[in-house]
Amino acid sequence: MDLLPKCDANYVPLTPLTFFKRAAEVYANRTSVIYEGTHFTWRQTYHRCRRLASSLRSLNIVRNNVVSVLAPNVPAMYEMHFAVPMAGAVLNAINTRLDAKTIATILRHSEAKVFFVDYQFVPLAREALRLLMGDHSQECVYSESSCPLVIVIDDIDSPTGVRLGELEYEQLVHNGNPNYVPEDIQDEWDPIALNYTSGTTSEPKGVVYSHRGAYLSSLSLILGWEMGSEPVYLWSLMFHCNGWTFTWGTAARGGTNVCLRNTTAYDMYRNIYLHKVTHMCCAPIVFNILLEAKSHERRQITSPVQVLTGGAPPPASLLEKIEPLGFHVTHAYGLTEATGPALVCEWQAEWNQLPKGDQAKLKARQGISILTLADVDVKDLKTMTSVPRDGKTMGEIVLRGSSIMKGYLKDPNATSKAFKNGWFATGDVGVIHPDGYLEIKDRSKDVIISGGENISSVELESVLYRHSRILEAAVVAMPHPVWGESPCAFVALKKNANGKTDDLKEADIIAYCRKNLSRFMVPKKVEFLPELPKSNRKNSKISVKDFGADF
Amino acid sequence: MDLLPKCDANYVPLTPLTFFKRAAEVYANRTSVIYEGTHFTWRQTYHRCRRLASSLRSLNIVRNNVVSVLAPNVPAMYEMHFAVPMAGAVLNAINTRLDAKTIATILRHSEAKVFFVDYQFVPLAREALRLLMGDHSQECVYSESSCPLVIVIDDIDSPTGVRLGELEYEQLVHNGNPNYVPEDIQDEWDPIALNYTSGTTSEPKGVVYSHRGAYLSSLSLILGWEMGSEPVYLWSLMFHCNGWTFTWGTAARGGTNVCLRNTTAYDMYRNIYLHKVTHMCCAPIVFNILLEAKSHERRQITSPVQVLTGGAPPPASLLEKIEPLGFHVTHAYGLTEATGPALVCEWQAEWNQLPKGDQAKLKARQGISILTLADVDVKDLKTMTSVPRDGKTMGEIVLRGSSIMKGYLKDPNATSKAFKNGWFATGDVGVIHPDGYLEIKDRSKDVIISGGENISSVELESVLYRHSRILEAAVVAMPHPVWGESPCAFVALKKNANGKTDDLKEADIIAYCRKNLSRFMVPKKVEFLPELPKSNRKNSKISVKDFGADF
Repeated sequence: MDLLPKCDANYVPLTPLTFFKRAAEVYANRTSVIYEGTHFTWRQTYHRCRRLASSLRSLNIVRNNVVSVLAPNVPAMYEMHFAVPMAGAVLNAINTRLDAKTIATILRHSEAKVFFVDYQFVPLAREALRLLMGDHSQECVYSESSCPLVIVIDDIDSPTGVRLGELEYEQLVHNGNPNYVPEDIQDEWDPIALNYTSGTTSEPKGVVYSHRGAYLSSLSLILGWEMGSEPVYLWSLMFHCNGWTFTWGTAARGGTNVCLRNTTAYDMYRNIYLHKVTHMCCAPIVFNILLEAKSHERRQITSPVQVLTGGAPPPASLLEKIEPLGFHVTHAYGLTEATGPALVCEWQAEWNQLPKGDQAKLKARQGISILTLADVDVKDLKTMTSVPRDGKTMGEIVLRGSSIMKGYLKDPNATSKAFKNGWFATGDVGVIHPDGYLEIKDRSKDVIISGGENISSVELESVLYRHSRILEAAVVAMPHPVWGESPCAFVALKKNANGKTDDLKEADIIAYCRKNLSRFMVPKKVEFLPELPKSNRKNSKISVKDFGADF
Repeated sequence: MDLLPKCDANYVPLTPLTFFKRAAEVYANRTSVIYEGTHFTWRQTYHRCRRLASSLRSLNIVRNNVVSVLAPNVPAMYEMHFAVPMAGAVLNAINTRLDAKTIATILRHSEAKVFFVDYQFVPLAREALRLLMGDHSQECVYSESSCPLVIVIDDIDSPTGVRLGELEYEQLVHNGNPNYVPEDIQDEWDPIALNYTSGTTSEPKGVVYSHRGAYLSSLSLILGWEMGSEPVYLWSLMFHCNGWTFTWGTAARGGTNVCLRNTTAYDMYRNIYLHKVTHMCCAPIVFNILLEAKSHERRQITSPVQVLTGGAPPPASLLEKIEPLGFHVTHAYGLTEATGPALVCEWQAEWNQLPKGDQAKLKARQGISILTLADVDVKDLKTMTSVPRDGKTMGEIVLRGSSIMKGYLKDPNATSKAFKNGWFATGDVGVIHPDGYLEIKDRSKDVIISGGENISSVELESVLYRHSRILEAAVVAMPHPVWGESPCAFVALKKNANGKTDDLKEADIIAYCRKNLSRFMVPKKVEFLPELPKSNRKNSKISVKDFGADF
């Protein structure tokens, strides 16, 4: 058999940028982006991104530089998913719910060269930049020149005077070269995106995606969710894993991106109705928003909206309420390290015959691997043997395949810890049912998922321990009717000068946490105990039950 | 930005074998293959292929060895698409319409180590092997040991005594090791399949596919054709480009493969009806078979069958007849070198508003690139500039991307000729419409497409020239009501001893061709001329009109 070497005609690096170029050619006049009064076609979006990419190059952005962005689901945020890699750079979309301190940490760690900030987040960004520039205690001290160049994203409704630096997004687009030829991808293993995850440790970790991984994940999520041609996609979570890859996926399918600044019930229903939305992804919290909408906020949904949801499985009671409204729910399981959803609960036609209750049970399982994962298994990590497919025996969920991250940026220890014996260990505990579908039984990592956001109990505890009066702290997940879970802190206090502990109240601890943590991470409840039960967290999970708390 | 090296967890070679392993796990009990009374599940098919792969290994098949097969659309043919690469080998599915001489040439050129032959083709294979073994005039003389090992594929209706060698397919499956662990793919660039194409020259050329190319093509054809989950796929052309990659694609989608020995109207309608077929691919000739079915051969089709067709675009008149029967036609354009379809005429929702006649015109265009092609263009090959998108200016259709073949086996000249300046030149002439859809206007290569089979006019001419009495010969495509096109030969004869030429008749030339060519290549018409018009074939295409013939 001949060797038959690769050549430019038959070996082209895999990158989502090819979806975009193709969309600009074959869906040229189809609507790409809708945002209130703004409409773009794929040709326009492509031209805008070429201009923006050329502007980035003229701002001295070079290959593998990081470009950070702090913005809601607006067109600029969408465009940067293409413009930034077209300039050869790496997109770092920052979770807008983080606090200034964490954002500063991310800007420092990623060495971001440019920082795009939506006008709405200028105060938050200003604070983050102040912390970044003012913090000389860090090893990596930033000189004036290494502070990221800040570019504000204006909007029609931006109040005037909200400025941070001289540059504005639309100016950059306008001034760019419309004939800019995007940088060729040299190697499909090159980075395209950097997403920080709170993960299980206190410091956010930078998860790096390759062009190859982003490309393959996009394809298999379209397939796994059966997203057909010309979807109309409503955006509620673009900064999470690059919109679970659908930022790139809608280009592959010639879809329309309906942008949304605020995920309020009114705005969601209005956009679904106006633009005949066919698809959306969301955290389970969004169901509550949709269900609790007042009658004047609602619109009649005439054709079903496919909804892909992650995080906690949707309970049967929720499905029974949400599906009659016109939302058809598919459940997925994923994590930042797997480029978003890794398992999708693919529906089997024969299940249509089952009673609704059984259907909801099946739908709540995490499901089967997306196509571009080479393998998924549930293993005893000590022996690396697979558990039997009995729906009972628990083990750790492990994944391998080309949609798994390249690794954690500048963190070889965490990277090598995550990759064990040729597998990526998720830290989640599950079972495999006889039909091959996985179901999560427990999270072995200390992660609380609240409103679709991961909260590290370790991070929260370490903040609590820094309080001068806290002797011991333990944070656990508490069921919450709106957020799914929320953090509950158990603390034992040091005595004050009078030998007492009753001078500190729940409100004081919460106020302290508000100052030191992103708002969504603040415990919803603080319980005081004279002493914390001692339990080896590595081997057994502490639950609220261990504390005898009554929820 | 860190380098973050690849590891086994995040970089797994792309191969269709992962679709198969996944199907065995997550669609374990779903029907994989139906063939008359035979039903297999995905788990069974996987186990059968493991056994077969292990048997191939025990027959000394090693990595990159070629395994040839001559069989219709039976389960064994399907299984070999997985079992052969699971043994590390390369599948060579041979067009069953070829003649013994061409088959011998293929076996010799590919150095096939094993040759599977369906009982129906034993006489043809026997003749091919006789030619292969007996032909000492070739440079590569086969010793006894290098003759491929022949394995017959029996069927329930095989007459006893049709034997060729000692081994039988089901025995091999039965004797194999059910616990065989398939060979790991070392490199996704490794070959998975070898498909001979008559192409434009007289010798068949061996087109080599990589695992990567097969994987990506499978994904993008599923997407381009919008093949959803659980398709029921009727097989009519498994040996063409590995069933246009749907051999692998049905595994990716957990589909059911309905096998079919004979593509008769009765058998097609019967299987469509019995198994609720949802998808099939076919050459346009199959439409004629379906349309001309007698009433007792027909069945009512209750839910639409998606049909992907290639070769000549379906004329509006045909669409008007076939669609009311329940066949929904999508038109694709491809070639062996592009792993089957490269362009698909993807339907745009807005076209539904147009009159039927306009719809048929749009449907007859070759369309837009499948997702895994990095680029498609129409170029002036001399200057390599793109033609304007005006639907008028013609140029050569060129393709690039990871679904293009690795190259031609042991033919570096043809390979380097096919890959020009980073593109694969198709040899077909087309235009690009303003909406980005391509339409073929002419084939610059001398290929006649008859009933979905490519016929090389050059090959046919070279056979005619070998006739002792033929002075000049030219073969052109002639429109044919059943086959789309058929070859028409123009010949000028040498005078016989009496100074005459009228002793040789059309029937004599046709009889000569039957002896020396595959049956489908034999000219349907022979015209005698005293002398052939001289025309430079490289620059201008000869057509039947040049000869003043009246069709």
